[in-house]
Amino acid sequence: MNILFTSAGRRVELIKLFQEVQEVDRVIAVDIGNTAPTLYCADKGFVIPKEGSDNYLDVLLEICRKYNIHMIIPLFDLELPFLSKLKETFHKEGVVVLISSPHVIEICLDKLQTAKFFNEHQIPTPLTYTPEDFLSRDIQGFDGQFIVKPRFGSSGKGVNKCNTKEEINYFIRQDETYIIQEFIRGYEVTLDILCDFKGKCISIVPRKRLKVRGGEVERAVTIEAPNLLKITQEIVSKLNPVGPINIQCFITEQGPVFTEINPRFGGGYPLSYHAGADFPKMIVKMALGEKIAPRIGIYRRNLYMLRYDTAIYKGEDELIDQSCYL
Amino acid sequence: MNILFTSAGRRVELIKLFQEVQEVDRVIAVDIGNTAPTLYCADKGFVIPKEGSDNYLDVLLEICRKYNIHMIIPLFDLELPFLSKLKETFHKEGVVVLISSPHVIEICLDKLQTAKFFNEHQIPTPLTYTPEDFLSRDIQGFDGQFIVKPRFGSSGKGVNKCNTKEEINYFIRQDETYIIQEFIRGYEVTLDILCDFKGKCISIVPRKRLKVRGGEVERAVTIEAPNLLKITQEIVSKLNPVGPINIQCFITEQGPVFTEINPRFGGGYPLSYHAGADFPKMIVKMALGEKIAPRIGIYRRNLYMLRYDTAIYKGEDELIDQSCYL
Repeated sequence: MNILFTSAGRRVELIKLFQEVQEVDRVIAVDIGNTAPTLYCADKGFVIPKEGSDNYLDVLLEICRKYNIHMIIPLFDLELPFLSKLKETFHKEGVVVLISSPHVIEICLDKLQTAKFFNEHQIPTPLTYTPEDFLSRDIQGFDGQFIVKPRFGSSGKGVNKCNTKEEINYFIRQDETYIIQEFIRGYEVTLDILCDFKGKCISIVPRKRLKVRGGEVERAVTIEAPNLLKITQEIVSKLNPVGPINIQCFITEQGPVFTEINPRFGGGYPLSYHAGADFPKMIVKMALGEKIAPRIGIYRRNLYMLRYDTAIYKGEDELIDQSCYL
Repeated sequence: MNILFTSAGRRVELIKLFQEVQEVDRVIAVDIGNTAPTLYCADKGFVIPKEGSDNYLDVLLEICRKYNIHMIIPLFDLELPFLSKLKETFHKEGVVVLISSPHVIEICLDKLQTAKFFNEHQIPTPLTYTPEDFLSRDIQGFDGQFIVKPRFGSSGKGVNKCNTKEEINYFIRQDETYIIQEFIRGYEVTLDILCDFKGKCISIVPRKRLKVRGGEVERAVTIEAPNLLKITQEIVSKLNPVGPINIQCFITEQGPVFTEINPRFGGGYPLSYHAGADFPKMIVKMALGEKIAPRIGIYRRNLYMLRYDTAIYKGEDELIDQSCYL
């Protein structure tokens, strides 16, 4: 089986895990720039046009045909809406795109819709306001702190903690697509989840974030959390996503409060792999048509991931030629 | 020779480079928390009290005696003032601390003093104001953008770009230790520099930042820049620092504009190593009393560093016992 990763970026650890799966012949990585390290770790790397460009689909189809790709695994939020809508087109070519439906992608990528989804299903989530909402109401009991963040943001970009209404006003004047959320006191847990093609939950690993860098986890530890596994299965059954997703929540004194759903591999997934949740192997088996038995709760507890930088060094003449597909 | 790295954090690449130097027997890493990945890559790792704590010096001295340490290399801004003042104490014990004088550390860690230093020596630097300065003057020709940042900050934390006086006022009201600098348009170049114990410049590698994550370089490329090497030597001759330092500047249409001096190994130094500037080997030779011939301009041009995460995975029972020195 040949697998294509789009927006592969610096997900080298993840790509190596797929390369180790017995049934995988070749892993191809594509990115919009020729300095993405994955391009040099995959069996083959290509520079392709930006998501949504005129020739985005044509280039991807051409690579799929030329390299006999069986499955596409997207890794970047902004390309998910495009690839989700193209799922059928790829399917007709015999290519599985491991991605949720456009409806699910829409809910997850829009933090306002995410909050609505959680509320509709009685899943605890922070109080969430649009700027309009916030300005028109005389919000009672305003004694706490708020988080102001972009409605369609990712990797913690543009997230600001505010202590006063004045501060909130300052930020929402800058950008009307900000939302305002009550600040939640607690520690943050990410759940790495794998769902099958029918949206059934196969595996869940909860990991506590110990240190974050640039919006992504740097140090984390797997934890025992039976209650979280239960709620997560409930969320998944209501949402019906496909493939790897991750859900973020805060653990407070009153219980968990859910904040985000990322409908793709989370950046910190390698920890869950090392804790025994081998998503690459399960995904390959799924793509080959095998039925995978759920393994909820089967993972190693108290395993620490301690991350650091490593790099690939390349001379200018060794970089991938950008002109091929651009 | 045995070397001790303090605040070793996630500088695994750097520590491995020192482990490869022929004359190095053992590398010891210390940090304030037992989840620093370097603790598990060094030959020995210890958790020690925070810089400036009551028993900080005693613990460091005890480790130096017990493990026959020849040289201490500090890696974190906030501990530099303490270690710089303790240099003589360690020297009496036969331990070299690879660090500049307290005076140099003071200039580099305070962005206001850095700007003053550059101005005094006719080195181009951004216009820099204290909040007081900024508020009291009617700054003429205010049509550009400004950067508001903490006077004593590091790793890009708290840096904000402002378009209006109102925005600047917003930030300086939050924290009076902010400074205001004119925004410089250009690309950023970092210079990895090694100086000998007398402050003489031995090696310089200029590298252009292509991508930054959490304030640290993620992708970079070494560049040809004879003019920068010349100015850098001038700066070094005025400043008189010791050991590895790095200087940051922006390359504008009017030439380079210098912004920061970090009097320690820069996070992106491994690129300069791969470009042929072997600071670890030179530092070890220096510490052994050898005279090192300057190698200015000797480095590989157009070498790219493409960084990604890797990690150490440890069970809770495999973590270093924190109680030993705390």
